[in-house]
Amino acid sequence: MMKTGFVFDESYFWYDSLNQAFPPFLIEPGGNPDRPDIKRRFYNLLSHSGLLKKLSHIEPRPATEAEILSVHSKAYYDSLAKQNSLPAGVGGEGAVFAEGGFDIAKLAAGGAITAVEKVLSGEVSNAYALVRPPGHHAETDTGAGFCILNNVALAAKQALQLGGFERVAIIDWDVHHGNGAQQIFWQDPSVLTISVHQHYSFLEVDTGTAEYKGEGAGEGYNINVPLPPGSGDVTYATVFDEVVIPALEAYQPQMIIVASGLDAGCYDPLGRMALTPKGFRHMASTVRQAAERLCEGRLVLCQEGGYDLASTPYMGLAVLEGLSAITLDLVNPFQVFGDSLGYTQEVLPHQAKVIATAIEQVRALAKA
Amino acid sequence: MMKTGFVFDESYFWYDSLNQAFPPFLIEPGGNPDRPDIKRRFYNLLSHSGLLKKLSHIEPRPATEAEILSVHSKAYYDSLAKQNSLPAGVGGEGAVFAEGGFDIAKLAAGGAITAVEKVLSGEVSNAYALVRPPGHHAETDTGAGFCILNNVALAAKQALQLGGFERVAIIDWDVHHGNGAQQIFWQDPSVLTISVHQHYSFLEVDTGTAEYKGEGAGEGYNINVPLPPGSGDVTYATVFDEVVIPALEAYQPQMIIVASGLDAGCYDPLGRMALTPKGFRHMASTVRQAAERLCEGRLVLCQEGGYDLASTPYMGLAVLEGLSAITLDLVNPFQVFGDSLGYTQEVLPHQAKVIATAIEQVRALAKA
Amino acid sequence: MMKTGFVFDESYFWYDSLNQAFPPFLIEPGGNPDRPDIKRRFYNLLSHSGLLKKLSHIEPRPATEAEILSVHSKAYYDSLAKQNSLPAGVGGEGAVFAEGGFDIAKLAAGGAITAVEKVLSGEVSNAYALVRPPGHHAETDTGAGFCILNNVALAAKQALQLGGFERVAIIDWDVHHGNGAQQIFWQDPSVLTISVHQHYSFLEVDTGTAEYKGEGAGEGYNINVPLPPGSGDVTYATVFDEVVIPALEAYQPQMIIVASGLDAGCYDPLGRMALTPKGFRHMASTVRQAAERLCEGRLVLCQEGGYDLASTPYMGLAVLEGLSAITLDLVNPFQVFGDSLGYTQEVLPHQAKVIATAIEQVRALAKA
Amino acid sequence: MMKTGFVFDESYFWYDSLNQAFPPFLIEPGGNPDRPDIKRRFYNLLSHSGLLKKLSHIEPRPATEAEILSVHSKAYYDSLAKQNSLPAGVGGEGAVFAEGGFDIAKLAAGGAITAVEKVLSGEVSNAYALVRPPGHHAETDTGAGFCILNNVALAAKQALQLGGFERVAIIDWDVHHGNGAQQIFWQDPSVLTISVHQHYSFLEVDTGTAEYKGEGAGEGYNINVPLPPGSGDVTYATVFDEVVIPALEAYQPQMIIVASGLDAGCYDPLGRMALTPKGFRHMASTVRQAAERLCEGRLVLCQEGGYDLASTPYMGLAVLEGLSAITLDLVNPFQVFGDSLGYTQEVLPHQAKVIATAIEQVRALAKA
Ligand SMILES: [Zn+2]
Ligand SMILES: [Zn+2]
Ligand SMILES: [Zn+2]
Ligand SMILES: [Zn+2]
Repeated sequence: MMKTGFVFDESYFWYDSLNQAFPPFLIEPGGNPDRPDIKRRFYNLLSHSGLLKKLSHIEPRPATEAEILSVHSKAYYDSLAKQNSLPAGVGGEGAVFAEGGFDIAKLAAGGAITAVEKVLSGEVSNAYALVRPPGHHAETDTGAGFCILNNVALAAKQALQLGGFERVAIIDWDVHHGNGAQQIFWQDPSVLTISVHQHYSFLEVDTGTAEYKGEGAGEGYNINVPLPPGSGDVTYATVFDEVVIPALEAYQPQMIIVASGLDAGCYDPLGRMALTPKGFRHMASTVRQAAERLCEGRLVLCQEGGYDLASTPYMGLAVLEGLSAITLDLVNPFQVFGDSLGYTQEVLPHQAKVIATAIEQVRALAKA
Repeated sequence: MMKTGFVFDESYFWYDSLNQAFPPFLIEPGGNPDRPDIKRRFYNLLSHSGLLKKLSHIEPRPATEAEILSVHSKAYYDSLAKQNSLPAGVGGEGAVFAEGGFDIAKLAAGGAITAVEKVLSGEVSNAYALVRPPGHHAETDTGAGFCILNNVALAAKQALQLGGFERVAIIDWDVHHGNGAQQIFWQDPSVLTISVHQHYSFLEVDTGTAEYKGEGAGEGYNINVPLPPGSGDVTYATVFDEVVIPALEAYQPQMIIVASGLDAGCYDPLGRMALTPKGFRHMASTVRQAAERLCEGRLVLCQEGGYDLASTPYMGLAVLEGLSAITLDLVNPFQVFGDSLGYTQEVLPHQAKVIATAIEQVRALAKA
Repeated sequence: MMKTGFVFDESYFWYDSLNQAFPPFLIEPGGNPDRPDIKRRFYNLLSHSGLLKKLSHIEPRPATEAEILSVHSKAYYDSLAKQNSLPAGVGGEGAVFAEGGFDIAKLAAGGAITAVEKVLSGEVSNAYALVRPPGHHAETDTGAGFCILNNVALAAKQALQLGGFERVAIIDWDVHHGNGAQQIFWQDPSVLTISVHQHYSFLEVDTGTAEYKGEGAGEGYNINVPLPPGSGDVTYATVFDEVVIPALEAYQPQMIIVASGLDAGCYDPLGRMALTPKGFRHMASTVRQAAERLCEGRLVLCQEGGYDLASTPYMGLAVLEGLSAITLDLVNPFQVFGDSLGYTQEVLPHQAKVIATAIEQVRALAKA
Repeated sequence: MMKTGFVFDESYFWYDSLNQAFPPFLIEPGGNPDRPDIKRRFYNLLSHSGLLKKLSHIEPRPATEAEILSVHSKAYYDSLAKQNSLPAGVGGEGAVFAEGGFDIAKLAAGGAITAVEKVLSGEVSNAYALVRPPGHHAETDTGAGFCILNNVALAAKQALQLGGFERVAIIDWDVHHGNGAQQIFWQDPSVLTISVHQHYSFLEVDTGTAEYKGEGAGEGYNINVPLPPGSGDVTYATVFDEVVIPALEAYQPQMIIVASGLDAGCYDPLGRMALTPKGFRHMASTVRQAAERLCEGRLVLCQEGGYDLASTPYMGLAVLEGLSAITLDLVNPFQVFGDSLGYTQEVLPHQAKVIATAIEQVRALAKA
């Protein structure tokens, strides 16, 4: 039986976003939420729990310039290449990197692409790419929010090309809006982009609202589900049952790519959501089953955000359980903590309203 | 003009909750949320911003055994004293301390008491005690959740005695329930305890619901406001306008003690709330004004929780601004980040319902 | 061709010596030199450099009680077992461990033993066990200096038994004296113990001087080479050429175990020695060649000390190069830094004197 | 009675040398030895030990452009000013700084100058400036090794001018060569520069040998004492008794400035020396007494290196004891550890030879 693939390279944890996350604000150095330790601890937990051994290791290669230019502009590429040998480069707002950072960003993008290749070649049943830096805020011309290259967009592009596909879906469950894929595929119906996120104006203009649906040929092929703070497992499950999965069924993707942020977890500092391990496991499992039903299981998850030293690894572990259909014999400590939060085991009216709006868009998509 | 007092001792930051927060769960060491760095960074920011110079430094003394026994049991005291010279002691669930931890806990409790003394003697207009370990989860017989001695309860007890008072109020705005003061003063009408917190079952039995009102002579003198996750500045302001301040007006305290957790801040990992610096400044300012109106300004704030390296210091800075009535000429970075969160500038129906329940209890108190 | 084996388990990096290294002294928490990060970074560098892929991974098992009792007393074993479920246990002076630490110590000892098994079975040519906690200060009845179980002594005991051997040699190049093996095999000629260390009185009585030679049947079978601070590559090479290798040749061991501390490196805080990567590579290579000549290559290295975040990984990398006879195409940054130190490329008179004393003991051994 | 002054500003600990110390070498981020924590912990210990209260706090001001240009070139100044608003600037080899770093460097230089001003005005008996970044590697045109502006050179220049002096002495006991002051005052007899350091070729050309004596009018006014690795209290005391103090007596300085690195301490990773707290206390005390004898006590110490989380604070504490003539009732833990090192309580022949060479230069100076 085929295993779930797992892309990892030690250098992902050598990517350095420096000590100061929020210039021009004056914050004592050392408070950058994007510390490499967090995702390293996720990897460590996979190792310690024994799950890593049950996955198939995939060694990444760097994305080529041609691949990167399928999504990003030459001017942006050249700017990154030039800054790569400086002590610090700037990919965009909140996307600063230490020397050599572009090299690692290329390996992160290449990791997402390699995962696609291995799934397409049938060597693995599906795959998780534990890459750094993340990518889902990166747009054609710029990085943002720790992101340099849009890993999931690059993976989708390569899926279209290598698989000879006409339809690929990107689902983004990072707590922040997947603005990058939305912008990149704005007019492109060959990639359905769905972002389930916290209502939060990450950039100056909030492009994560339900009004943003794509344009031209791409109209209707971008779905935003901007959930209220405090949404938990039940609300997310409802979104998946009533929006995400129906949208996939309407669209019939030939491959699914997930921007798998872990920052909607119930102890993440950068989000106000309340997903527990159970919720993460369920999302991953639900999408895996949809992929099995719709596109022979072709599914790649790429690591995006996740910012808590203690809990993020355990949220990631649950995602891997759902993706691999392996249930570990281990008490996930953040299940009990997550379960103790009030108001998170129901769909509240203001949450239901957001979902209802998204359902309408799915219906329109189904009719298209 | 009198200044706001500020209790601090370097040893507060030498209190060590060890590396492992959640035994018996298996978590890679290093993920303990109660790292001393966070509150040290709060202190550093006070220094860097220039606010520290405008406060009056208060040097703490340790709480005496007699003072501690006014709140805690002898058995618990003896257990702590005995464990103080071990490499690790256990004060209760999630309240582990390294060698010498009880000495520091006594200095923390003593810091709260010294603040009371200085306010009563008129040397300072009011005071903030930046102490560690925190205290509001500690009950008569046990510590819990990083807390060893109940600093605010001890401060209230000393206020009653030293001030010759009959009525002291404890307001707890830490994101977690102030179970300690509730239990300690359960039957005691001389201390009004109000806890505004996130609905969250910290202990096995959730004692933070509105049903818990005190008993016997103390009936009605404990008010819980268990807010839903995602509550922000407007909801908290409404709670203060419609519950906390009216309750104080009904009760007419002779002194006010605040359990000032910063973990309801919009980037705190251990809460799901969305207070911005503006919200914290407003709470502190509102309570200061109430104290000025009701009890000649007698007000002491004690540090409780707060768990984010980057944002917690800025939430604390805002509290100090509100308490001291000094507005700094400084852009608080977490204001803009906090303002970007959706659904936090309104009172949603399920939040309003919690508030309505509390208002009823205040009305009963007013009639009492 | 057979590869060098490499013992590693993620849990080695979950062993926690707490934050406070030196009770009863008052040191701000956070200064414990034995931070897991350092040896993790060694592992990370092996991965990042590509060397890890060229080694054969060995999965450790815990040492059994019977195995441990071949070296340690039942009283000590029971004391550790009992303390394993406390928040902190004490194995001896400076050997404190967090909950579960004895479990990991057993896996560390088991890692050394597994390495011996794999070498004896011919599955690997030789092996490195990257274990934590270290072991070389642990004696029959007590731990000390971060060490709980004496990993190299246990490995030697198992080598004797499993290999049906009569003579095993332990070489200790940690910067601190290998007091544990000296004490354990004090009267036992079946294990030759050689410790090359910095003259430093780690314990109250300095047992690391040349006068300590063993007793009874073991007399002459313990060799201490207490080098002066500041000794570098050339001095160490001379010690190996003139003392260690001749002693091995005289003794004709059937297997060699090395207590491979990296703390004699030129940037280690706990030592004042000046070994560069070249020096470490040379020691490992020299001993490997001796093992090949004398005992069919049977050689196991166990991780002991090493305390610098930046340089320790690179010293370890060089040891692995020497052990595996693989030379990486990589500039070791600490080579150039190490080479810049004066007085380290020569044998100074006071160093020569120490060596001369040891040479005499080797001559006596050769005659025995 | 006048107190020892103590210059400190919180922003010194916000200076950020980034995570990567040694480009172009590939080192996992996080290993930069110049972490702000170390000097913060020194400050914390001064606070915790009670010594801080016995010192007179001096608030620093930034050095002015004119002051800085008294030592550094306009081109270098402009380059730093321009880079100040970049995410990272480069002052020279190994001297990288995060945004705002030049502002802090100016406050560090200004701290040294303010200390001079306060000593000259008689407000304090002498002073210690706990500044960051350090300065003693900075030359006219460039920074190096974490240093941006040469704080001690700037202090000496201001002493000459403000005091109307003709002779100021700089003593550098950092473990690395004080190349900056040597270069800056190379031809200038109005500043006697003495560097007692470890023989170590920090820069490509080793300018720290005894041959470097100054040139032209400055010939003979630069004294290098490049000690061998492993030198301890007795060797350093001998250097002070036989070289430094006699040189001061010969030169008759009107003020003394010390580049007070703590990295010759016996547990410092960047040095191989073996000074214990006693040795540091003695150096500071000896120089204080010389200042009292020769120049009415006018003496300023500026913080330079020091790189061990645990021990550096305790070495610094001892320096402050020696400078202030206050002996704390506290067991300095690194005394017992330092005392346990062999070969450090004597002057070995190769050390004596270095001292003898320096003594000859002092004799020549005495005759000049
Ligand atoms: Zn995110
Ligand atoms: Zn709390
Ligand atoms: Zn060692
Ligand atoms: Zn230095």
